[in-house]
Amino acid sequence: MEPLANYNRLKALNLKLDMSRGKPSPEQLDLSLPLLAISDYKDDTGVDARNYSNLEGIPEARRFFAELQGVAVNECLVGGNSSLELMYHTVELLRNTYGKGKWLCPVPGYDRHFRVTEVLGYELISVPMTAEGPDMDEVERLARDPEVRGIWCVPKYSNPDGYTYSGEVCKRLANMSAAPGFTVIWDNAYGWHHIAAKGDELPNFTALCKAAGNPDRAVAFCSTSKITFGGAGVAAVSSSEANINALVKYFTAMTIGFDKLNQLRHVRFLKNEGGLAAHMEKHRAILAPKFQKVLDVFAANLPPEVAEWTKPNGGYFISLYLNAGKAAKTVQLCKEAGVILTPAGAAYPYGKDPEDRHIRVAPTYPSSDDLQTAAELLCVAASL
Amino acid sequence: MEPLANYNRLKALNLKLDMSRGKPSPEQLDLSLPLLAISDYKDDTGVDARNYSNLEGIPEARRFFAELQGVAVNECLVGGNSSLELMYHTVELLRNTYGKGKWLCPVPGYDRHFRVTEVLGYELISVPMTAEGPDMDEVERLARDPEVRGIWCVPKYSNPDGYTYSGEVCKRLANMSAAPGFTVIWDNAYGWHHIAAKGDELPNFTALCKAAGNPDRAVAFCSTSKITFGGAGVAAVSSSEANINALVKYFTAMTIGFDKLNQLRHVRFLKNEGGLAAHMEKHRAILAPKFQKVLDVFAANLPPEVAEWTKPNGGYFISLYLNAGKAAKTVQLCKEAGVILTPAGAAYPYGKDPEDRHIRVAPTYPSSDDLQTAAELLCVAASL
Repeated sequence: MEPLANYNRLKALNLKLDMSRGKPSPEQLDLSLPLLAISDYKDDTGVDARNYSNLEGIPEARRFFAELQGVAVNECLVGGNSSLELMYHTVELLRNTYGKGKWLCPVPGYDRHFRVTEVLGYELISVPMTAEGPDMDEVERLARDPEVRGIWCVPKYSNPDGYTYSGEVCKRLANMSAAPGFTVIWDNAYGWHHIAAKGDELPNFTALCKAAGNPDRAVAFCSTSKITFGGAGVAAVSSSEANINALVKYFTAMTIGFDKLNQLRHVRFLKNEGGLAAHMEKHRAILAPKFQKVLDVFAANLPPEVAEWTKPNGGYFISLYLNAGKAAKTVQLCKEAGVILTPAGAAYPYGKDPEDRHIRVAPTYPSSDDLQTAAELLCVAASL
Repeated sequence: MEPLANYNRLKALNLKLDMSRGKPSPEQLDLSLPLLAISDYKDDTGVDARNYSNLEGIPEARRFFAELQGVAVNECLVGGNSSLELMYHTVELLRNTYGKGKWLCPVPGYDRHFRVTEVLGYELISVPMTAEGPDMDEVERLARDPEVRGIWCVPKYSNPDGYTYSGEVCKRLANMSAAPGFTVIWDNAYGWHHIAAKGDELPNFTALCKAAGNPDRAVAFCSTSKITFGGAGVAAVSSSEANINALVKYFTAMTIGFDKLNQLRHVRFLKNEGGLAAHMEKHRAILAPKFQKVLDVFAANLPPEVAEWTKPNGGYFISLYLNAGKAAKTVQLCKEAGVILTPAGAAYPYGKDPEDRHIRVAPTYPSSDDLQTAAELLCVAASL
């Protein structure tokens, strides 16, 4: 069929589909329903999670997240439902300590990251991503500027490309010269979210920074929002004990503490690293066919002269790269046919993709049928 | 018995009691245990509380808190587990809009309030409290200074005196002249926490400010931390729709949203204003005898020339006023005998009670026996 006729056919289906964010599907959320029935309220050290105390998290939850993140318990704070909130305040604390400055943003990247440093007054500097991680020659060059205060990283199954940083990139990030206080925000949002049968491996970056003599450089985050419930999970941060103590002090002005009952529910449900891995296999069984479906539709409909795309081993996104000047128009055509994609350019600082090439595809939320139609629509729109 | 002999007798009991904070007792926390078993996940408008959405709160929870606070649904945001966190960010947003300045602090007051404005860079100005609320002549006089940006208020069963603002004070606060952006942080933390059979009444301050032509002046907060679970409840803020929209925008940079499952649990458990009132009657049955016990011990042991104290109709605290220069020493003597009280001076800006007279007594957490001993110890220490 002609692309235009095909587009009009799909438009006539009156689709109404929001694929703008990386949301778990209802089927995935159902996997964690037993968590809601847990009504324990004392952790295994006897802390009553129903009352004020332990701003740094209940001991049982700190042990769980410390094990996941490969740090000591004192190097881990367990927070509330939002890792973005923990990151925001970490960057705010850095700003209050070292002042505003420049912040490195591997692109394409996560729009909500870039927005945090933007509203906190930093100048955003783009750094190209590669399949191995950010272009380290460029990062090292830029970090010679003493005004550069830090870098955003989604080191495993990156948002939106799905790339995992290589051991070499991790080592260079840990060891490179930079201004005092230079901080790597290590948002390991997808650390356990494999799609391929054999997932990628990521070095322990906190340990690498410690070994490099830069123990305060790494501040690593994770969250169960895409493990249990989106926006109703538990987030944690790990770093040097000095950094964790500084964060505790900072949060003490702001809150009496985080929701410890939800911390306890999560630890009792996920149990340990093994329990988490088994749970994530169930997510993989739901997500792997969805990712494959999108990749199949792309392969069948997008010739190499029109587009290229990433084939991630995990995470929540596929990056689709069209020819220059095509992305915004394609997203607009999809919108007019009832499929909302992430706005073109969102993955770049200030929302501007300089080449207008990139579209972030989020295959997790739609049903399998909807996904097929949406992917077809995207291909047709890109070909118009 | 001689005071010193009595003190040594009590000290020999090897007490170990922390009365430094206003914490619900385990018996009170048990009242809300059924809440933990609630595993609903869709609100009555169909919002799936397990997934990202609705930063302003789920509709069902907004209706509940809007009803409680006497505002329209669009004038209410339902947040996470901490009202202090909502206040901190409200003051931070004000500071970013109007700049630093001075902040009025009715004294004695809540140390965590004062600390928020202190770390956010405001100069703290003490205003005397009266049994009717802050000294309004003084507030009106101070607010003529255009550098004065706002005032902290705990309008019902104030922390620590247990006073409730009179209608007259509320009206003057709503109507008085002040610099643009002058904000009343109306922390209605104890709005439903009666101890007397007939509780105090508080005017609807948001409505008063609207009627006075100052709709953005009132920003009112409440929390279920002392209704259900300390630090694991739900907090809400109400104000003009313009202020709520500004807060939503502000929070959007910081988080994808608050924990909606906990919002849903709470609404399903408390149901409505009537359900809340019935629940609070159960708290009252536990707390009224504890407050009475402390008042009885004080009356039996503290002659008028040694001390005076408040007799609140609700809330979490009793204020004990000793002769000048006596408070810090008394708190220290209690500590040496194993009873930790709130540090003397904590209820004043910068932790300094200029007369060293005030001690905040928190009768809620200890068992009845412990409370008797602790109150006796306090009387003996004050008499030494």
